[in-house]
Amino acid sequence: MDHLRRIGALRRKLTRAGLSGLLVTHLPDLRYLCGFTGSSAALAVTRRAARMFTDGRYIAQASEEVQGAGVEIVSRSPAVAAVEWLGSQLGPPTEDQFAGFDPVHTTLADLQRWKGALPAKLRRNLLTPIAAPLVEPLRLVKDEDELNILREAALRGCRLFDHILGYLRPGLREIEVAAELEHQARLMGAQGMSFDTIVASGKRSALPHGHATESRLPKRGFLTLDFGIIHDGYCSDMTRTVYFGSPRPEERSAYQAVLEAQEAAVAAVTAGAACGDVDEAARSVLRNAELADAFTHSTGHGVGLEIHEAPRVGANQTTRLQAGMVVTIEPGIYLEGRFGVRIEDMVAVTRNGGEVLTPAPKALIEL
Amino acid sequence: MDHLRRIGALRRKLTRAGLSGLLVTHLPDLRYLCGFTGSSAALAVTRRAARMFTDGRYIAQASEEVQGAGVEIVSRSPAVAAVEWLGSQLGPPTEDQFAGFDPVHTTLADLQRWKGALPAKLRRNLLTPIAAPLVEPLRLVKDEDELNILREAALRGCRLFDHILGYLRPGLREIEVAAELEHQARLMGAQGMSFDTIVASGKRSALPHGHATESRLPKRGFLTLDFGIIHDGYCSDMTRTVYFGSPRPEERSAYQAVLEAQEAAVAAVTAGAACGDVDEAARSVLRNAELADAFTHSTGHGVGLEIHEAPRVGANQTTRLQAGMVVTIEPGIYLEGRFGVRIEDMVAVTRNGGEVLTPAPKALIEL
Repeated sequence: MDHLRRIGALRRKLTRAGLSGLLVTHLPDLRYLCGFTGSSAALAVTRRAARMFTDGRYIAQASEEVQGAGVEIVSRSPAVAAVEWLGSQLGPPTEDQFAGFDPVHTTLADLQRWKGALPAKLRRNLLTPIAAPLVEPLRLVKDEDELNILREAALRGCRLFDHILGYLRPGLREIEVAAELEHQARLMGAQGMSFDTIVASGKRSALPHGHATESRLPKRGFLTLDFGIIHDGYCSDMTRTVYFGSPRPEERSAYQAVLEAQEAAVAAVTAGAACGDVDEAARSVLRNAELADAFTHSTGHGVGLEIHEAPRVGANQTTRLQAGMVVTIEPGIYLEGRFGVRIEDMVAVTRNGGEVLTPAPKALIEL
Repeated sequence: MDHLRRIGALRRKLTRAGLSGLLVTHLPDLRYLCGFTGSSAALAVTRRAARMFTDGRYIAQASEEVQGAGVEIVSRSPAVAAVEWLGSQLGPPTEDQFAGFDPVHTTLADLQRWKGALPAKLRRNLLTPIAAPLVEPLRLVKDEDELNILREAALRGCRLFDHILGYLRPGLREIEVAAELEHQARLMGAQGMSFDTIVASGKRSALPHGHATESRLPKRGFLTLDFGIIHDGYCSDMTRTVYFGSPRPEERSAYQAVLEAQEAAVAAVTAGAACGDVDEAARSVLRNAELADAFTHSTGHGVGLEIHEAPRVGANQTTRLQAGMVVTIEPGIYLEGRFGVRIEDMVAVTRNGGEVLTPAPKALIEL
């Protein structure tokens, strides 16, 4: 990972935002910038230097992992130590020396604690809430290292799906399916699941977020599997809906409509496309199939170190896709008390289209 | 669950704090007060009424789960809707009408968004940061319903340990042990694990938070297992350290010292005891064994709807235990590059001692 390049890019953003420094406490941001994977740390970046603060548990790990920033082990709060260091780096407060912090990931209690540890005259200069995120826009566009990890994470997800297809049979409890999926993920070396595995069968497939229950897989009906693994810190995310038995005509046509909607949205993914237009590509297919009301969520979201990242691929979103973004494309329909269908791929945006990272089959599988 | 009693207790705290209402957005607090388990909601409580706001995904679930509060489905932010409702309930702002919010669980960006949705004259009255937590002190002392769930959660954890003992053998990868443990937990109906399972074997047992890796269980050496399940929303937490082969004398004596320290701290648990004294009970045993420096963390923490809750059972903590609190007692020693040992029980505080909720054997098991 080219952490020096990332910190360099952050510095250019600092300069443009008129800031002399930045306090980074959101751990995925911190990991992105300097590589540290521990659970307690703060990173301070100025235009010239960068230093990461963590506690005694992480001496060995920090020296092994951190790149592009010095490491200091502290026994007090890493964030307070980082703010104090910013103060020492920036010198006496002046009108144009400001260090920022991220109000999206800072609680009022955090800020209170940090302020309490600083001399009053430094508070304003060292703790300026930034007006717009600075690290998030960097993380939005994945570099080649990140794309390779995400490709591998997504492929492992596909292998898991292939494994579970051989395991599924009517009468199994949903939790047994989740258990088998997660067990196999562990054995494949996943660091964990990206989110609570969704196993929603029969009428429960109409729940967009139907976590696995004691319900048994039906002799006839849909099964939606939505799951992801964490590989090398990065999240995979995919959904497939399969059928037990022989689908009724309305079930088959609903599946076909979702599949067409999903493929239309995947086809709309390309650098320069507005997120809202990708969403509309899916939505218009479902509108034509008179299923628009049953599509109750957005088409997708960015994915990377966190399972939900920017951009949001939703109605009327004007954000434009850029090459290197990775988004999910996951339209679904939910008919309460009857059934639901969702199909989801991870797609990397390229200059001339989308690269589907999850090439598992999408034609309706009848088990 | 007696949610009406809990909301009643919160109202008494509101009155004592001079508040007319409270906005609750931290989901474990919200679940505790009104029973809702969904992932997006806000609860507003005044001295006379309570209402919970959530979105369209949760219509059925909210009406099934919520007790002690009205339910309103909204398409805008539940927190903003809750603040507006507080405004409508409290009437025109006066000098003594204040509604509070919790600064520990509110980011600056949240507060900004809420303020933006309110008329300026209401902001100060409806969005007062509370000086001290109001719901946390209620959650600290578990009621009989909660104790029964925690007992069951802890027993299931013990059953898992018993299961894994029959599975362990030298040469297995740590991740296989974690996979088996988590698979079995799922099959037993656990909603998930309380935290990332710790499987630290051989020299890795010297890592206090050694998550499962590709390392293989040794022919001779320690294995530390620290894991918990989520049962009915409540977390279990336990640690056992076992040995493969025949322990060397220093390993055996270190294990004995940790066991004595752990038992001394368990024996010190009783209503009225200061948390610092319970910590000291463990620490002094390890000091006598010349292992005090190797005990690098606190003795324990509260556990309930969240895996880490108040109180902290650490050095010099003056908080006094009360009957109904549930804490972990988990001293450990970590000798870098050599080995580590940790033993952990969940203990419910009673009027005359502690009730150990995790009765799995603690004498050194040699496999």
